[in-house]
Amino acid sequence: MWGTIATWRMAHDGVLKASDLLQKNGHATDAVEALINVVEAYPYYKSVGYGGLPNEEGVVEMDAAFMDGDTLAQGAVGGIHSVMHAVSVARALSHEHYNSFRVGEGATKFATLHGFEMTNMLTDRAKARWEKRLAEQRAQPDNPYDGHDTVGAITLDTNASMAAATSTSGLFMKKAGRVGDSPLSGSGFYVDSEIGGAAATGLGEDIMKGCLSYEIVRRMGEGQSPQEACDEAVYPFIEKLKRRYGKAGEFSLVAMNNQGEWGVATNVEFTFSVATAEASPRILIAHPGPDHTTTIEPITQAWLDAYEKRIKAPIN
Amino acid sequence: MWGTIATWRMAHDGVLKASDLLQKNGHATDAVEALINVVEAYPYYKSVGYGGLPNEEGVVEMDAAFMDGDTLAQGAVGGIHSVMHAVSVARALSHEHYNSFRVGEGATKFATLHGFEMTNMLTDRAKARWEKRLAEQRAQPDNPYDGHDTVGAITLDTNASMAAATSTSGLFMKKAGRVGDSPLSGSGFYVDSEIGGAAATGLGEDIMKGCLSYEIVRRMGEGQSPQEACDEAVYPFIEKLKRRYGKAGEFSLVAMNNQGEWGVATNVEFTFSVATAEASPRILIAHPGPDHTTTIEPITQAWLDAYEKRIKAPIN
Repeated sequence: MWGTIATWRMAHDGVLKASDLLQKNGHATDAVEALINVVEAYPYYKSVGYGGLPNEEGVVEMDAAFMDGDTLAQGAVGGIHSVMHAVSVARALSHEHYNSFRVGEGATKFATLHGFEMTNMLTDRAKARWEKRLAEQRAQPDNPYDGHDTVGAITLDTNASMAAATSTSGLFMKKAGRVGDSPLSGSGFYVDSEIGGAAATGLGEDIMKGCLSYEIVRRMGEGQSPQEACDEAVYPFIEKLKRRYGKAGEFSLVAMNNQGEWGVATNVEFTFSVATAEASPRILIAHPGPDHTTTIEPITQAWLDAYEKRIKAPIN
Repeated sequence: MWGTIATWRMAHDGVLKASDLLQKNGHATDAVEALINVVEAYPYYKSVGYGGLPNEEGVVEMDAAFMDGDTLAQGAVGGIHSVMHAVSVARALSHEHYNSFRVGEGATKFATLHGFEMTNMLTDRAKARWEKRLAEQRAQPDNPYDGHDTVGAITLDTNASMAAATSTSGLFMKKAGRVGDSPLSGSGFYVDSEIGGAAATGLGEDIMKGCLSYEIVRRMGEGQSPQEACDEAVYPFIEKLKRRYGKAGEFSLVAMNNQGEWGVATNVEFTFSVATAEASPRILIAHPGPDHTTTIEPITQAWLDAYEKRIKAPIN
């Protein structure tokens, strides 16, 4: 048995890559890094890595994390800049017992010192979007934040090892140094090879109020299926957040247990990609269903065509 | 009913201050900020605020968090510098729905723009310790990290509102931009006024592998007493960490529920301060006991005298 699940349609090429590694008995840690690296490198995904949208000052600041489900070792970066593969920096940090979570210039310094590929992450296309938004904000200052789509992934390999990782450029037009849930243990990600793993995407400020990735893994550890764990962790928390905080941002979670079973929960339209030894890689689309359930359907070619057109449309 | 509990003997003067506010029907949020502010301002506490020990480059970089147990609102800073009261910056950020966790220069910029007291946080005494350690490291490069004592506190007010907060200068000689558990939801702190709260101190890199503050609050929510929740969350996790990761750093947790009952768990000698409407503020000392229990005793005058002498001893 092997398997992988990852957030958003953008993860699909990475899922193909990870699946290839996993079916050749590759390690879960290598597969999850490779999966995220594919997404980070693709310039048309505007919320992760190269081509990601910048903060309000025009700087592409990235958050990423890596967790080894065998050892519980974690590495993370927050507000790192100018590095092509933030998740690979996080993985390198996961080998450190001390100083394994680094932010800002300290994180960027670590990447530079350790020979990671550094580059200007602001593509012409992302810069054009940023300039356009600056003009819009001058005209209408209440323009809301958007673009908080993290790639988060879980992998299970044929030796029953698991791993989790995340990478994102965070909220478009965020304040300098803003960090979301993606690099935070238990909020953006969590994995335990003896149980399973979970990862999140969406408004990090609200996801971290609930430690949702940890809660899903904990529930799987008590015997719930991944889908039960997602439904029972996420939907009551959204109601609690509305009751106590007055509102709840958009967010979505994916999970896989150490048998390759998987689940998702979301309060918005949410695409994801999943593959196991028994079912070849495919893109699915989820919506919140009735009574704390999730409806999941195959993606349509029309949806994919519209997506492809949208991500490559001229900026004007 | 009101109550407060906080990590380490250093928190005691803050607990006195918070107790005074709480018995006058002050709000839990104001009390927890006031408690932490007292510790941040005292120059002889070398792991929090003014007088805190610097990173390897000589910069005092601080982490802090604030959580409102009524609304679940959180604010946090990581790697902030030159600000007298990091926890007050975190509290201000908790009022933001977006950008509520900020790190590095972005966090420092927020503090400057919002009129927080900025100062050189490196005292002569802390600088002398740093210079001494630099010389020791040149002589013996394997010198281990230390000085990871966070002040973490929970408050319960007479209106049944609760709050949690943390503040620390982190590991002495840490790498630039290293962030520990203190600003991470569920790891360094968590509070829900309908249940209770918990806060952590110790090696953040290991605390975040277990999301221990969230787990303790969750267990209290299932009906466990704070002491049961601390014991059952912390000690099995330490064993798990040794089994899976090969080792476990030093850490200690405190918790209080919304009835003012409290508990602690630790794998080292651990002092803390606690006060409730029924028991006046006092310093206690905890040790790990047999079979996943915690032994708790009153502090002795001899211990306090030795502590006072130690924190003010000349650096040489």
